[in-house]
Amino acid sequence: MASVNWSRAWGSYLQTNLRWTGTQASRPICFSPLENTLRCFAASRRASSFGASHRDGGVQPDGNHHLPLKVNRERLMETLHETCAWGTGKRWGQASTDTGMSRLTLSDSDKKARDWFVGTVEALGCRVTVDAIGNVFAVRPGREEGAATFAGSHMDTQPTGGRYDGILGIMAGVEMLRILQENDVKTKFPVGVVNWTNEEGARFPYSMMGSGVWAEALPLETAYNLRSVTGESVTLKSELERIGYLGNVPASFRSIPMGAHFELHIEQGPILEAERRKIGVVQGVQAYKWFTIEIEGRGLTPVRKDAHTGTTPLANRSDALLLASKFMVHGNRMATKHAALVSTGILTLSPGSTNTIPGSVRLSLDIRAPRNETVEEVEAQLRQDFAHLAAGKDIGSLHQGGTLGKGEFSVSWRTDSETTATVFHKDCIKCAREAAADVLGAGSDGLVRDVVSGAGHDSVYASRICPTTMIFVPCRDGVSHNPAEYTSPEDCAIGAEVLMNSVLKYDAMRS
Amino acid sequence: MASVNWSRAWGSYLQTNLRWTGTQASRPICFSPLENTLRCFAASRRASSFGASHRDGGVQPDGNHHLPLKVNRERLMETLHETCAWGTGKRWGQASTDTGMSRLTLSDSDKKARDWFVGTVEALGCRVTVDAIGNVFAVRPGREEGAATFAGSHMDTQPTGGRYDGILGIMAGVEMLRILQENDVKTKFPVGVVNWTNEEGARFPYSMMGSGVWAEALPLETAYNLRSVTGESVTLKSELERIGYLGNVPASFRSIPMGAHFELHIEQGPILEAERRKIGVVQGVQAYKWFTIEIEGRGLTPVRKDAHTGTTPLANRSDALLLASKFMVHGNRMATKHAALVSTGILTLSPGSTNTIPGSVRLSLDIRAPRNETVEEVEAQLRQDFAHLAAGKDIGSLHQGGTLGKGEFSVSWRTDSETTATVFHKDCIKCAREAAADVLGAGSDGLVRDVVSGAGHDSVYASRICPTTMIFVPCRDGVSHNPAEYTSPEDCAIGAEVLMNSVLKYDAMRS
Repeated sequence: MASVNWSRAWGSYLQTNLRWTGTQASRPICFSPLENTLRCFAASRRASSFGASHRDGGVQPDGNHHLPLKVNRERLMETLHETCAWGTGKRWGQASTDTGMSRLTLSDSDKKARDWFVGTVEALGCRVTVDAIGNVFAVRPGREEGAATFAGSHMDTQPTGGRYDGILGIMAGVEMLRILQENDVKTKFPVGVVNWTNEEGARFPYSMMGSGVWAEALPLETAYNLRSVTGESVTLKSELERIGYLGNVPASFRSIPMGAHFELHIEQGPILEAERRKIGVVQGVQAYKWFTIEIEGRGLTPVRKDAHTGTTPLANRSDALLLASKFMVHGNRMATKHAALVSTGILTLSPGSTNTIPGSVRLSLDIRAPRNETVEEVEAQLRQDFAHLAAGKDIGSLHQGGTLGKGEFSVSWRTDSETTATVFHKDCIKCAREAAADVLGAGSDGLVRDVVSGAGHDSVYASRICPTTMIFVPCRDGVSHNPAEYTSPEDCAIGAEVLMNSVLKYDAMRS
Repeated sequence: MASVNWSRAWGSYLQTNLRWTGTQASRPICFSPLENTLRCFAASRRASSFGASHRDGGVQPDGNHHLPLKVNRERLMETLHETCAWGTGKRWGQASTDTGMSRLTLSDSDKKARDWFVGTVEALGCRVTVDAIGNVFAVRPGREEGAATFAGSHMDTQPTGGRYDGILGIMAGVEMLRILQENDVKTKFPVGVVNWTNEEGARFPYSMMGSGVWAEALPLETAYNLRSVTGESVTLKSELERIGYLGNVPASFRSIPMGAHFELHIEQGPILEAERRKIGVVQGVQAYKWFTIEIEGRGLTPVRKDAHTGTTPLANRSDALLLASKFMVHGNRMATKHAALVSTGILTLSPGSTNTIPGSVRLSLDIRAPRNETVEEVEAQLRQDFAHLAAGKDIGSLHQGGTLGKGEFSVSWRTDSETTATVFHKDCIKCAREAAADVLGAGSDGLVRDVVSGAGHDSVYASRICPTTMIFVPCRDGVSHNPAEYTSPEDCAIGAEVLMNSVLKYDAMRS
């Protein structure tokens, strides 16, 4: 990979360590006048878009101040975009990199990206392990033996995905390895980067699959037998074999232990951008439950009443779609009241004709909240209120002024999936918070916030085994799983620096 | 056809005429004691289910009272069920006649039913004309030349239709011809029965097609070129030729004039049954407009926001389905307020995933009311209110307590079809009301009501050319277009008698 080497790494890694352990010898790195000039230039460029003062506290022209280790932003972005040649997706803008990604897991494109990753990290002095589910672990030795502190994410994408979801986390990990290598940084314990297999679940339908197998949450054989949903007659295992990533090391944390797992990821939501934040320190992943609700309108006889819109007075209807509408309006109100999320993404009805009142409706219901208890509360409330609405009792004045009709309704709930809340590790969160403060300098308070991830990530499974957290950076309009997914080079670099310094802080605090 | 001939017709046809014209000679029909006994027995049997007193006024044991002409109920039902051997559909109950019908227009089954119709009415002394669109007109001569007073309906059905929709009207017409023949009744002008082609529009997609061509509302060539929607590569014209019903008489009221058109039909709605009425005298057909409404949620950039349900706070959403839900609740309220009907029968959304907020929704909207002005009012109100709701203004407290989100929405309306209200003819309505009173006897007030048809019928087109009305009889649960569609033999017979006596009254009042 070509890289622009205008910036040399600097930092006060060992001095930072002292803050944590109080036992490491200090070896300040001194900078030449040219290097100091470049550092100030880079810092002011980066700071310009969110207030120059924010980074000033961390940059001193004398070079003796404690600095967080920096990444090479240009190299980071060049590497990211160059690897996006494997699986380039739909174009959304005019620039050469204004395209999305379509790099389905274990495809030829994924193989090329994996081959590049292995070659790159091996050249940086890492030992590479491929496990039986194709997870690729790159480990850079530390001064002591032990499980590595990992940066991890994934390089597979959605069929119409973008260049940042997952990919940024891996590229930031590779950049971390480069910076450590260039600066000859010796960490206490090994430091690693892991590329998890099939995070997206888009081609083989199980998301966060590789980390799930590693965490022993998903049986290996179940994963092996997943069949492609894109019409090919292949299994996940046959594709692992085909592209040469069916490793011979057991896919388990017992064979490949981790000291900790840090994951840099785009937010995939709008909060950071809306609040002009640069970093979200992820406290955990919210709980969610998915349901399918079926509403069946019934007449007074066993005959199903898909009645005629023209000949059936309002009072004689069993309009399942009207009732479903009230459910959705009420669900939104209860979500607002409980500070939860209630969403319907799928709604089908029968029979589906302009002049026939729908006799049956099926809708999805997705309830999420940071706390398990909130999800349970909202579910219990909605079960009760939907039953009352179906029975004609008025909830929230939804029946008022209208005519639900005399028809009876049966409402059934099916629980499709349930994921309890994930709480990330306080030590990892502390490292990430401090790294963000170091990277963003004075005034970082306004640029960093705690967030709860709305979506699942490999870190959910990693957190079951080892201390884990995630670092979020803003993405434009909160858009993800879309070719136009975008995070600015500046934000990518800030995120990569926070990731690297979190890993180093955690390494330093380990005993 | 086999027929049970236990009942002989009787009536006071000519005396009834006197009431209308004051010029007809009276020729009372005298009954034998046995006939009187049978009449009283039949009347009490029929009356038993809705109060024996209701018919008593019209039945006098002395046989000299003015009586409406009666049908042979057993023969009517036997004929109906026997002809339903051609195109028998799905079974819904245990009895031999507990099946629906699947007699698509111009199918082999339809040909058999048509052949039976032609043979039967010719044997009853009618002249049969088949026009260029396959409408079959049977005309029984009167004392004077002139356009016939017709009973009309259709014998084609929906693919999963029942035994009464359309079919009852034709069977009642045939029974009328039999009664007139058996009693050697001489009408003033000719009396006829017409079987219209393709009323349902189920196989060739244009409903009320044959009457539409006859009324010159639909060009013959357009109808000829209709293609089957069931996967065959045939046109309507090729099927007319194939089954031998491509007539050589121009399909137009100019070639085949009508004095009037009366249509007996099942209500296809629940009103008569709910109010325990026996006859609905149809005042007209309500106006309706059909629309397709598209809601598109928009972010702040051109990127479409099909946002993630887990990562997108309520306030940052453009939830097109939530907005659509409010439209439907509000539509129902406005329908209630204006005594109109507002219905959504089709709703599709995109992209359709449990964890993706729908960015776009398309829904059908069907607005109906007896008066054109009401339809226009409701449409105008909904256009205004939907726009306000989409813009975040609260209408009817629908936004209250919930969170619509900051997203912008575009809402577009497309008008798919528009049918202005049909007003039936006052003379026909008068005849039907009086015939109902005669048939149901004293107490008929509580058994008859004026109704407005919610659905279209061949009578809509007929009414553009000649005086027209319809007579409705109850159907169980208001269910139609369903195998389990059902009207009791008693109600079929009452309807057939009202039809016959309406035709005779109208004939008598014509000058």
